[in-house]
Amino acid sequence: MDYSDPRLKGFKKFEYIDDALKKFFNSLDLNPVDCEVVNVSNALGRVLGEDVISNVNVPHFSRAAMDGYAVISEDTIGASFDNPIRLKIVGESAPGKPYRGQITKGEAVRISTGAKMPEGSNAVVMVEYTKQIDDYVEIYAPVGENQNVSKVGEDIKKGEIILKKGTVLEPFDLSLLYSIGITKIAVRRKVRVAVGAVGSELVDANKFNNVSDNQKYIIETNRIMISSALSYFNCEIVDLGIISDDEEDIKDAIIKGLNEADIVVLTGGSSVGKYDYIPNIINELGEPGVIVHGVTAHPGRPVALASINGKPIINLPGYPVAAYVDFLLFVPPIIFRLLGISGEYIPLKVKAVLDSKVPSKPGTRSFVRVKLVRKGGEYHAIPIRLTGAGVLSSLSKADGFLIIPEDLEGLDKGSEVEVLLIRRFIS
Amino acid sequence: MDYSDPRLKGFKKFEYIDDALKKFFNSLDLNPVDCEVVNVSNALGRVLGEDVISNVNVPHFSRAAMDGYAVISEDTIGASFDNPIRLKIVGESAPGKPYRGQITKGEAVRISTGAKMPEGSNAVVMVEYTKQIDDYVEIYAPVGENQNVSKVGEDIKKGEIILKKGTVLEPFDLSLLYSIGITKIAVRRKVRVAVGAVGSELVDANKFNNVSDNQKYIIETNRIMISSALSYFNCEIVDLGIISDDEEDIKDAIIKGLNEADIVVLTGGSSVGKYDYIPNIINELGEPGVIVHGVTAHPGRPVALASINGKPIINLPGYPVAAYVDFLLFVPPIIFRLLGISGEYIPLKVKAVLDSKVPSKPGTRSFVRVKLVRKGGEYHAIPIRLTGAGVLSSLSKADGFLIIPEDLEGLDKGSEVEVLLIRRFIS
Repeated sequence: MDYSDPRLKGFKKFEYIDDALKKFFNSLDLNPVDCEVVNVSNALGRVLGEDVISNVNVPHFSRAAMDGYAVISEDTIGASFDNPIRLKIVGESAPGKPYRGQITKGEAVRISTGAKMPEGSNAVVMVEYTKQIDDYVEIYAPVGENQNVSKVGEDIKKGEIILKKGTVLEPFDLSLLYSIGITKIAVRRKVRVAVGAVGSELVDANKFNNVSDNQKYIIETNRIMISSALSYFNCEIVDLGIISDDEEDIKDAIIKGLNEADIVVLTGGSSVGKYDYIPNIINELGEPGVIVHGVTAHPGRPVALASINGKPIINLPGYPVAAYVDFLLFVPPIIFRLLGISGEYIPLKVKAVLDSKVPSKPGTRSFVRVKLVRKGGEYHAIPIRLTGAGVLSSLSKADGFLIIPEDLEGLDKGSEVEVLLIRRFIS
Repeated sequence: MDYSDPRLKGFKKFEYIDDALKKFFNSLDLNPVDCEVVNVSNALGRVLGEDVISNVNVPHFSRAAMDGYAVISEDTIGASFDNPIRLKIVGESAPGKPYRGQITKGEAVRISTGAKMPEGSNAVVMVEYTKQIDDYVEIYAPVGENQNVSKVGEDIKKGEIILKKGTVLEPFDLSLLYSIGITKIAVRRKVRVAVGAVGSELVDANKFNNVSDNQKYIIETNRIMISSALSYFNCEIVDLGIISDDEEDIKDAIIKGLNEADIVVLTGGSSVGKYDYIPNIINELGEPGVIVHGVTAHPGRPVALASINGKPIINLPGYPVAAYVDFLLFVPPIIFRLLGISGEYIPLKVKAVLDSKVPSKPGTRSFVRVKLVRKGGEYHAIPIRLTGAGVLSSLSKADGFLIIPEDLEGLDKGSEVEVLLIRRFIS
């Protein structure tokens, strides 16, 4: 093996991130996964597998849209404070307790918002424009037909598409489904992602105390990061565990992942050093193999995007910060396609003022970890000073990434920047 | 009962939203809930109950930060391409396979990133500046002490606070905990929220087909909306079910909620109409009772913020859109306090250009449902035309709320606005 300068020789070409994604998606035909039927009560965050068409009208009976009196609109023509019109109160309609009779000319029914309109009535006079006098009500303003009435089908019409295939279901969508009597729904099954960490030096955090020679080992921390990040996207995890640097072990893990999951994600061994031979192993396992190896992300250069028999295999760097950057860049877009989500994902970003000059390499997209501090009405982004490479704590100290695009050579102090948040709460 | 104009007489005063929140939080002493110990593997999104202090150094042994050769830095003084320095290769150190010997003057050990530094070595010469010739390596550049070395404690020092009390745990925080050997952690227990819907006209969606006279009933849709929205905040739900308009039933439900949960949320009956008497019932049940009744939100005016014996009771309007607006305004801030979250919650917002003029009432904060459409590099916000009040489908048709503040009388077409997203994906 030639050991003289593996990094420069090994990577044929670093792809621009956007090009890498295009090249990868062009190389394989990712279709949405199958559907399954779930209870609407468990469908939050799931993706609709088909259009939902209402087979009822909502409301399915005419309802009062205001508190007041249900009347025949013609009876109120000409009513004013100077010329009140008197109607006889013949009953009351409340939500759940409709008026059972029929209204005829000269009559009114006291009604509450949401209550069924009595037969014969066609409008509601708001309570503000009425006064009750014994069994009568004085009407001070005219109402037109259907005024202050929620008509049948006003909210949803029978036959209407109320939610489109590909919608990610939010709380109010579930309400909407209930409102038309739908309690079960076809959604995409969850995407299964196989996650493994490659490296003979790695040991499971939960077994660390049993390892005698802990000078030799490093606690494995990437699987929990990737697996829990995947739970934000409702994925199911197939844990491939810690995989040794042995070629056969790596092959077995990839084959298991391909058999049991929709996507295989391995961390470590993605570069071209002596112990970084996963891209080569993937190429030996099937077609087309590695499609992109190396991108212009910093951190995150040594990533491999591959596929075998139509299933994506993503080989993330072993360094946790680089792994997280490449994960965010490449894995969610694959999941969104497998779920058949229609629409554009909106990441959480805030505007900030950059607190100090940050250099970056032109041609590279830099992901600078920054802490955000609120000063008055604006946020200041403070780059986190790094004392070494692969520093995991730098993520926990950060609120987000300041992303410096490929065409810049860094950013000056005081620049207006956008920060991609990696936390929901800024402290 | 005086039925002449309940809305105007009933609400003593509509509070500004910000004042309402201040008044409410000043009226009660909300302390964080107790802690419980959970596995780090299940701690995503949970809130740290105490500072986490590392009792180890990370790395806990000196590691190579680059691929190359571990050397004694003094040996490399004066090295250049014109004046290469030759060192004898005495072995190799790989991740998980450290070099067992000791380096002495004139020696070098081949080393990979992450591998343990051999005893006696104090720097790494990057592979780019070397060339192997048989058993020797030529060094073309000098390295200073500790250059390209991750020193003991460089990432985390023993005794350092690595995560603060009140942090909401993200994927990389879990990695960080693992990296210092922590696999169990004290977090706030989940907040329990009792959720019920009040109204004799309401029927459970899952029982609707059994109801014979469905002219009389309306399918209840608020509980699923509120409960699933609460799941975004990791809450546990106590389902109070559908509660009739009967005063005793309402009392029983509130008492059950106060006994079993940290917060009680009831929808419906929050106004001052004939069938809207929950605020009065709350006042009968204990002190201090209703603190705010009616706010200047549109939709969302008839909300009541109350507490009994230090537990919050939030009475949301029955109309689903109003309920959702008031939920977003008032419930998450309570949950964040009960979880002891430090930091500011950052909602998902995007900038957009308003597609048509929108009127609003001065003194009222309006929440206008808008659909977002991307046109080139910008989003256009298209207000959703409403055909009636309380229209649930208007939420599902929307991507977010355009919020018009109290001091404006609406917004003109073409205004630059910010839209609070209620969906993660814009279609």
